[in-house]
Amino acid sequence: MSSSFGKIFRLTTFGESHGKAIGGIIDGVPANFEINVEEVQAELDKRKPGQSSIVTQRKESDTVEFLSGIFDGKTTGAPIGFIIPNENQKSKDYDHLKDVYRPSHADFTYAKKYGNRDYRGGGRSSARETASRVVGGAIAKQLLASKGIDITAYVDQVGSVKLSGEKDVNEIENNIVRCPNAEVAKKMIALIQKTKKSGDTIGGSIVCEINHVPPGLGEPVFDKLHAELGKAMLSINAVKGFEYGSGFDCITMNGSEHNDIFNEDGSTKTNHSGGIQGGISNGMPITMRIAFKPVATIMMEQETINSQDELVKLQGKGRHDPCVVPRAVVIVEAMAAMVALDMMMRDSAVDI
Amino acid sequence: MSSSFGKIFRLTTFGESHGKAIGGIIDGVPANFEINVEEVQAELDKRKPGQSSIVTQRKESDTVEFLSGIFDGKTTGAPIGFIIPNENQKSKDYDHLKDVYRPSHADFTYAKKYGNRDYRGGGRSSARETASRVVGGAIAKQLLASKGIDITAYVDQVGSVKLSGEKDVNEIENNIVRCPNAEVAKKMIALIQKTKKSGDTIGGSIVCEINHVPPGLGEPVFDKLHAELGKAMLSINAVKGFEYGSGFDCITMNGSEHNDIFNEDGSTKTNHSGGIQGGISNGMPITMRIAFKPVATIMMEQETINSQDELVKLQGKGRHDPCVVPRAVVIVEAMAAMVALDMMMRDSAVDI
Amino acid sequence: MSSSFGKIFRLTTFGESHGKAIGGIIDGVPANFEINVEEVQAELDKRKPGQSSIVTQRKESDTVEFLSGIFDGKTTGAPIGFIIPNENQKSKDYDHLKDVYRPSHADFTYAKKYGNRDYRGGGRSSARETASRVVGGAIAKQLLASKGIDITAYVDQVGSVKLSGEKDVNEIENNIVRCPNAEVAKKMIALIQKTKKSGDTIGGSIVCEINHVPPGLGEPVFDKLHAELGKAMLSINAVKGFEYGSGFDCITMNGSEHNDIFNEDGSTKTNHSGGIQGGISNGMPITMRIAFKPVATIMMEQETINSQDELVKLQGKGRHDPCVVPRAVVIVEAMAAMVALDMMMRDSAVDI
Amino acid sequence: MSSSFGKIFRLTTFGESHGKAIGGIIDGVPANFEINVEEVQAELDKRKPGQSSIVTQRKESDTVEFLSGIFDGKTTGAPIGFIIPNENQKSKDYDHLKDVYRPSHADFTYAKKYGNRDYRGGGRSSARETASRVVGGAIAKQLLASKGIDITAYVDQVGSVKLSGEKDVNEIENNIVRCPNAEVAKKMIALIQKTKKSGDTIGGSIVCEINHVPPGLGEPVFDKLHAELGKAMLSINAVKGFEYGSGFDCITMNGSEHNDIFNEDGSTKTNHSGGIQGGISNGMPITMRIAFKPVATIMMEQETINSQDELVKLQGKGRHDPCVVPRAVVIVEAMAAMVALDMMMRDSAVDI
Repeated sequence: MSSSFGKIFRLTTFGESHGKAIGGIIDGVPANFEINVEEVQAELDKRKPGQSSIVTQRKESDTVEFLSGIFDGKTTGAPIGFIIPNENQKSKDYDHLKDVYRPSHADFTYAKKYGNRDYRGGGRSSARETASRVVGGAIAKQLLASKGIDITAYVDQVGSVKLSGEKDVNEIENNIVRCPNAEVAKKMIALIQKTKKSGDTIGGSIVCEINHVPPGLGEPVFDKLHAELGKAMLSINAVKGFEYGSGFDCITMNGSEHNDIFNEDGSTKTNHSGGIQGGISNGMPITMRIAFKPVATIMMEQETINSQDELVKLQGKGRHDPCVVPRAVVIVEAMAAMVALDMMMRDSAVDI
Repeated sequence: MSSSFGKIFRLTTFGESHGKAIGGIIDGVPANFEINVEEVQAELDKRKPGQSSIVTQRKESDTVEFLSGIFDGKTTGAPIGFIIPNENQKSKDYDHLKDVYRPSHADFTYAKKYGNRDYRGGGRSSARETASRVVGGAIAKQLLASKGIDITAYVDQVGSVKLSGEKDVNEIENNIVRCPNAEVAKKMIALIQKTKKSGDTIGGSIVCEINHVPPGLGEPVFDKLHAELGKAMLSINAVKGFEYGSGFDCITMNGSEHNDIFNEDGSTKTNHSGGIQGGISNGMPITMRIAFKPVATIMMEQETINSQDELVKLQGKGRHDPCVVPRAVVIVEAMAAMVALDMMMRDSAVDI
Repeated sequence: MSSSFGKIFRLTTFGESHGKAIGGIIDGVPANFEINVEEVQAELDKRKPGQSSIVTQRKESDTVEFLSGIFDGKTTGAPIGFIIPNENQKSKDYDHLKDVYRPSHADFTYAKKYGNRDYRGGGRSSARETASRVVGGAIAKQLLASKGIDITAYVDQVGSVKLSGEKDVNEIENNIVRCPNAEVAKKMIALIQKTKKSGDTIGGSIVCEINHVPPGLGEPVFDKLHAELGKAMLSINAVKGFEYGSGFDCITMNGSEHNDIFNEDGSTKTNHSGGIQGGISNGMPITMRIAFKPVATIMMEQETINSQDELVKLQGKGRHDPCVVPRAVVIVEAMAAMVALDMMMRDSAVDI
Repeated sequence: MSSSFGKIFRLTTFGESHGKAIGGIIDGVPANFEINVEEVQAELDKRKPGQSSIVTQRKESDTVEFLSGIFDGKTTGAPIGFIIPNENQKSKDYDHLKDVYRPSHADFTYAKKYGNRDYRGGGRSSARETASRVVGGAIAKQLLASKGIDITAYVDQVGSVKLSGEKDVNEIENNIVRCPNAEVAKKMIALIQKTKKSGDTIGGSIVCEINHVPPGLGEPVFDKLHAELGKAMLSINAVKGFEYGSGFDCITMNGSEHNDIFNEDGSTKTNHSGGIQGGISNGMPITMRIAFKPVATIMMEQETINSQDELVKLQGKGRHDPCVVPRAVVIVEAMAAMVALDMMMRDSAVDI
């Protein structure tokens, strides 16, 4: 019941980190759209493990294979089925976890919910599932681009190192932490490397912007544009908070400073609204910020319990990310793209 | 397409602030449950205008009338239809807005989306719609209470006045701002009164806790418990941000300090997880915080544009809230209740 | 969970035959469409009791009152809420049923499902609920008409009196049984009157045609156009069967006679396909036939059981239809209209 | 939007007859259920081509491969992803169809809807998609069996040869036409063989019974049990009609003969209701009958049009079924199983 996302442009996923493959089905794709498969793979490459020194050193090619819905390079209108084979399954890495609940992981909650546990890499709770989201998002992005809409996300903060100074979106893919300022990027990378060395992990945040959305996108009441974006982002592993526009800073503001005053062309002088008013886009850039917690698996010894409710010592093993945000940038973009496209489709539905 | 909330326990609403009535239909209600109608009305009274000196002075009794689904005081299992008549419609208060887009309101975006505009009180974008949510939430709360689950929300911050010192939940309904500390409440009330006097408005935040949820509630992947809560809260008028557990503070934390270490009984020493791991409850209190922007309607003159894209001056009129959080507390609880109950139902669905 | 119909053009209903009112919410209505409210009421009048000598003599005006979503005669894009007050509630008529399960009614099954029973007129199982469908259908019809699509249903058979001879759609509303042939209508009416006199009831069938649907409407696989139409019709009280095009007659046919051979313009020489191939419209008239069982309430004494599983005698009382098809014609049209419109909206959704 | 079936027990499928594979994702599976994979494959074998002399001679092993959701032979509660590789793709068989619309096929309607066409075996309109339904249905059947519910379907009629005489369900799998009477089976087989020889095809019907469903299953109003069953069956390729209980025969019946009179134990003396009253099961066997048209592909020359709207001659080629009902029996059972299980889950959802 929880493996589908979107109402019209709809991604359904399956797969655990240590099964044969993960994959998904994308329904609601318009016919006759030329899919750039290389670009889809390039997006996956931004998420894949082993891409740099500051991410997990697990090696996995994450190659997507399309099984249906594309004929002669174009969509047919039928659902697009795809798989991403699992290659580098060191299940042995997880043998020591068979009976132990890792602190702040989903081990305990899955065991309570399902009465069983796939301890190999977290099973369905593994962030590996997000690779399927990147495939869906990559196709959504291509469809949005054909309508002039683009999406950019970047790392805004790692620990206490926050983006400041100039912001150059062209810089984002020039550094391994995906920060739009080269100087700040260096500091972020240094902090991650230092954290990794100490066997610890660190939190961070990502900013995402959706640009060139015309006014009028979104639904009033329950399915407000930012409510759908919020759900999408909060569904990504390790996310703890979501804000758009002024976000939590609005708490200490007065209406007279928070209100976005119009220019004559309908744009606004400020963008505290984050491009959304009453749940509907106003034509300004849609801006949001997402908080990611430090990865729960640390290379330090921790006290925890096992399935017999006994206190045990746990020493982290395996290959894990010291900070998730560099690899999460493309996932954030994917979720934003799927929401934007799905909302466009809901919007055009009533336009018979 | 956007007027329904929940998958199994499902509220569908209708109504504008200046039509004959607002109302809704609650589907998915178990049969033979004794509804306390007075308690439902008491919840509505916590949201109603005119209840104190720090909220809008509009007078409206907000009396709910049930039309179906309840027979001899008990639910029948059929959908519960209800209406709340609109009583105090000073549509004339809005005549000056007929052609003007108020800054940071939904006037502009609705006009662009629908090509028309119900300028009388904001039409469907009016927060009056949330009264229907309070009815749904009040019934959800009673069902949850029968399972031992309770929900408490309170005002955590108004402008720069933040809750500190002792927190006494019994104090919440003892002061008009709904803060669980009497001393802090006084400061919050003073700030709202001062702000109101100056014709301005101010932001604030609400904390909500769901208590006594057993481990195992929630869905993995897209419908994580906190993702559904986030969407629910972000769908409330004026909300700009949502966080749970450590929230945005997690950004600067290391894994070694953020991880919640287990006690032998499965509880945890800290609750940075906010009662949720991997999208599923772990038995600890579920905690979240929601940011509300300052009300956009201020009693000061502002520059804005009209539907002919001409710059005009706008002077706020009518009866508006200087700060929404005192009245929003019960709305936050309602949304939390509907999410928790719906997730319980989704959970029990597969248990054939 | 079961009170909503349609995915985008979506009707949600509430109400029992003996509560204060029945009603519904129509979501997914395009903005700025001029609703002809009189026409909606005229459709309701075709369903209402007491309209002729061959239907139930219960008197109820069935007046619809719109509460939202329409402003200055036009839709706003917001959901349309409406109620139809219950007027003529002779609950006493049902006192003798308080404890008795009527044969072939929903009394027994509702009692088993819900553990309770609203014996007054059948509660939620009453066909009175279909009045809300007629409201939704009437609005759908007006929207379809603006696209050149029209829907016509008529009584095709009553007992063994089957429509034959010439078929004149203009004749349908000229006779109280709603048969498109005046001569056959007389025989049908005579049969119903004779049946009524004997205290018995009789079955019948309705044919429905949707005309001027362009090729391409419908979804492949699970939501085939005829599958959605079938579900819609089978959800009407008393329906026992649904067929489209050649229907059950196809069983004895060979492919060489069943295949619809194309004309050069894409139309077909025959229409065994009923206007649908592979679940998608082909531009020919969409034709279907629906079987209605004889009303279960008869004015004869029957043996039955009560809630203590004791055999008791039951004598039918109250005011009931001897044959449902004359009043069901407009319900069939309403369901067909809602399906066609919803499918059009689903179709246009992907057309961003 | 149309590739998912079921609300809680939910099958989503992908795949064309001539892509790399077809497959699906089954969501809403309870955890810790032991899946008999051999039994799933055995069900697929009942649908597979080449199984006897009266079905298509296409050879395809139709081997299902599970990719997720099953660990150590038991379900984990995660979605079950599966593929069925396409093996015997004689795409050349379809080269002559590249530009031609086959009469009473979905070629014309798909071309109109999607503006393109995958002519190789019908693309998404191919009945090959139903193999994925059989996988979903086989798992649903096993879950139902654990609750004591079983489903039996059989061929009831082929052309004018109708089942009569004794009905022995043990006989069904003893003959290649799947008729529960050996003598009638012989006549049906003879008719199919004669029809095949002449290059023609023939229609047929299947009866399906769901047994041991307790009273109370189903939803009132729109999602009546028989409405969901009807949609499920009508969504199968080649189906033209659905009836339950007395079905179309009810038209000529009086209420006094149609009413099912209760026995003291709540069972009924007759079963015109087909086990369903008011959309909800009454504990009697749930009975339905489904009409299948003759296969549209015949080995005779037909006149038709091409995509330039020119009249052309078409000679059927390839390997096709002369009558679909023998292979459709297991598909009917699969759809019935998925509906029954999904309705059980919807029912248990509100039982918190």
